[in-house]
Amino acid sequence: MIRVPGGITAPHGFKAAGAHVGLKRKRKDLAVVYSETPAKVAAVFTTNIVKAAPILWNQSVLASRKEIHGFVVNSGNANSCTGSNGIEHTKTMAETAAQALSVQPEQILIASTGVIGVPLPIETVKSGIISTTPQLSTDHSAGTNAAQAIMTTDSFVKEIAMKIDIGGCPVTIGAMAKGSGMIHPNMATMLAFITTDINISKELLQKALKTSVAKTYNMITVDGDTSTNDMSAILANGLAGNTLIDIESDDYTTFSKALDTVNTFLAKAIAQDGEGATKLLEVTVHGARTEEDAQKLSKSVVSSSLVKTAFFGEDANWGRVLAALGYGGVLFNPDKVSIDFSSGGAQLCLMKEGTPSDFDEVSAADILKEKNIQILIDVDDGKCAATAWGCDLSYDYVRINGSNRT
Amino acid sequence: MIRVPGGITAPHGFKAAGAHVGLKRKRKDLAVVYSETPAKVAAVFTTNIVKAAPILWNQSVLASRKEIHGFVVNSGNANSCTGSNGIEHTKTMAETAAQALSVQPEQILIASTGVIGVPLPIETVKSGIISTTPQLSTDHSAGTNAAQAIMTTDSFVKEIAMKIDIGGCPVTIGAMAKGSGMIHPNMATMLAFITTDINISKELLQKALKTSVAKTYNMITVDGDTSTNDMSAILANGLAGNTLIDIESDDYTTFSKALDTVNTFLAKAIAQDGEGATKLLEVTVHGARTEEDAQKLSKSVVSSSLVKTAFFGEDANWGRVLAALGYGGVLFNPDKVSIDFSSGGAQLCLMKEGTPSDFDEVSAADILKEKNIQILIDVDDGKCAATAWGCDLSYDYVRINGSNRT
Repeated sequence: MIRVPGGITAPHGFKAAGAHVGLKRKRKDLAVVYSETPAKVAAVFTTNIVKAAPILWNQSVLASRKEIHGFVVNSGNANSCTGSNGIEHTKTMAETAAQALSVQPEQILIASTGVIGVPLPIETVKSGIISTTPQLSTDHSAGTNAAQAIMTTDSFVKEIAMKIDIGGCPVTIGAMAKGSGMIHPNMATMLAFITTDINISKELLQKALKTSVAKTYNMITVDGDTSTNDMSAILANGLAGNTLIDIESDDYTTFSKALDTVNTFLAKAIAQDGEGATKLLEVTVHGARTEEDAQKLSKSVVSSSLVKTAFFGEDANWGRVLAALGYGGVLFNPDKVSIDFSSGGAQLCLMKEGTPSDFDEVSAADILKEKNIQILIDVDDGKCAATAWGCDLSYDYVRINGSNRT
Repeated sequence: MIRVPGGITAPHGFKAAGAHVGLKRKRKDLAVVYSETPAKVAAVFTTNIVKAAPILWNQSVLASRKEIHGFVVNSGNANSCTGSNGIEHTKTMAETAAQALSVQPEQILIASTGVIGVPLPIETVKSGIISTTPQLSTDHSAGTNAAQAIMTTDSFVKEIAMKIDIGGCPVTIGAMAKGSGMIHPNMATMLAFITTDINISKELLQKALKTSVAKTYNMITVDGDTSTNDMSAILANGLAGNTLIDIESDDYTTFSKALDTVNTFLAKAIAQDGEGATKLLEVTVHGARTEEDAQKLSKSVVSSSLVKTAFFGEDANWGRVLAALGYGGVLFNPDKVSIDFSSGGAQLCLMKEGTPSDFDEVSAADILKEKNIQILIDVDDGKCAATAWGCDLSYDYVRINGSNRT
């Protein structure tokens, strides 16, 4: 498995475009991704009861179609909480794109991200789709343009491509994602789109995506708010020419591992780029009885406002870590817990088997001033482990979300 | 039911004292409350798996004793995550107070609040208990001193007293509480102490407290962090002289209502005085299928970081309210939801039965600039309602929790 340049246009047969069409003031706000060959599709969606109009559209596409041709994403407006007009607008987006690409509307997924509760300026979006589709290209820069066009308060582009070998055929996976706020995915994710030229059955594509999402996007949090627009979708057009993967063979495992690598990369990028974040926090819980317990405990710590503000303040307040473990919904023995902080190769023990360590505050300060910090926890109750990712809670989170409607 | 002056010393036979003994730099940090007559006791404790040493002590007291004589509270240090030394220190506090008051150590509850993970300076606390007990007094000011001494980052004293009539006997309930941060009680509360001179069985006292806590302290949140030290305890010494309440009679109902009033008052005060808070948010959900559903939904809204920052920014971002309802863990139909904001007698509809209202932003701004704001939600799915209380999320929350170890 090697990383290769580019993002969603890296696999064979995928074209992309990203442009500014007038939803945001200056920055790109519309992305189109297209596979000339029909591509098998799999996706997972937000578990929020309140689902944005595009999510409802995509669910019906997934229920009726095995193969699709692409997707359109607008940023600047989430088309969420917009009533029946919102549903119509999503349909119009799919119809407009379908006509421009000479395919069926039900072969196009739609995603919207941005402010919620504000009507989508549909005429702007329509003419934007019409003007953007002629720019579709297989160039790396076209993939990057699309990745830029799905950003909201994101501060950097999130894209990656990996190459693997499947039975002698080179197979490529490309992906892009956006995150930033309202990030606390549950059985779904913020927007993450993956393209691949692998030849695989729709059933195994869905299984690989769902399994990977549980370990990656579902293990990040920025602010504990689960969005109405979360989704992760993967398109596989089969152009790599490998023998169809239709059983859980070694090839399936190779593909799944590469998919995990891609999704972990993007999940960490989303956590690191959380609204106002100054630090990436990586919480690993070892010694849990089940993987689910380890996931619950690590997410409880990385979600705690008090843990997040302590790291923003570079304060070695490990007691808050223990308190957050304690309300994580999992039984364990506090007298057996060990807690270490680590960064840049240095590691410091703050609590060893239930007893506070007499640690050196200067060594702690050296670890805490870094941008990527690991919080290592051992609950010494079993053999399972899990990692969750998040960020600190800073003044800028309050500024970004308190100062204007985003 | 009428409100009367004072707090925990308002009922007959309760004495209190509050003093500065050296745990904090300047402010009072030790409270002692004492009933000469043995008082029946009921309490609820944090559900955090990690329990501070005083909680473990109190649980053993409650399991072995029906009647006790009082409690000692220190602020400035929570004696939590302090290993076996912490357990010893709590025992020493009870023994010291018991000797000073000529009672048994098992007749004294202990509570500690403040920084966690730092050893309690036990000699300071010991000499503080010895110097404070001689100041015990039935004066209102003594109750206020005790209420001041349990404060940490609280910005105002939280105490109340109510008088009711039970079969011709005047009965008084007094109470004090502290809140501020790490506030997300679950089947327990931050520190809240209630005294009463009512004559009631221990079983009904426990039932009345538990029922009331579920509707009051358990319905507030500041930051979603459940503390290791939460507790609410009530002492009833029977000096009012009413006939013993040992069945769920009208008298029991009268007492329970007064207890709810007291606890609601303090719960709202804790929410209003959340760390960095500038506004009290009161979220009422009507039309839920069950009371539990209404509680889940209202708590989900008042816990949302995005809702909290929007109110801090005085932004009528009702879409975030709907999104937070949507991940509250309760099934409902978003197309039937109505949302109103209200304050100072004015009310504004933002969404009516699933359709966004074309509301006036100026009227919204007038409502949002107030300090006490009601968020009224109707999910139109049943007849049950519940109210949750919280506060906005401001720069000061980040400053308080990011700038030094609290």
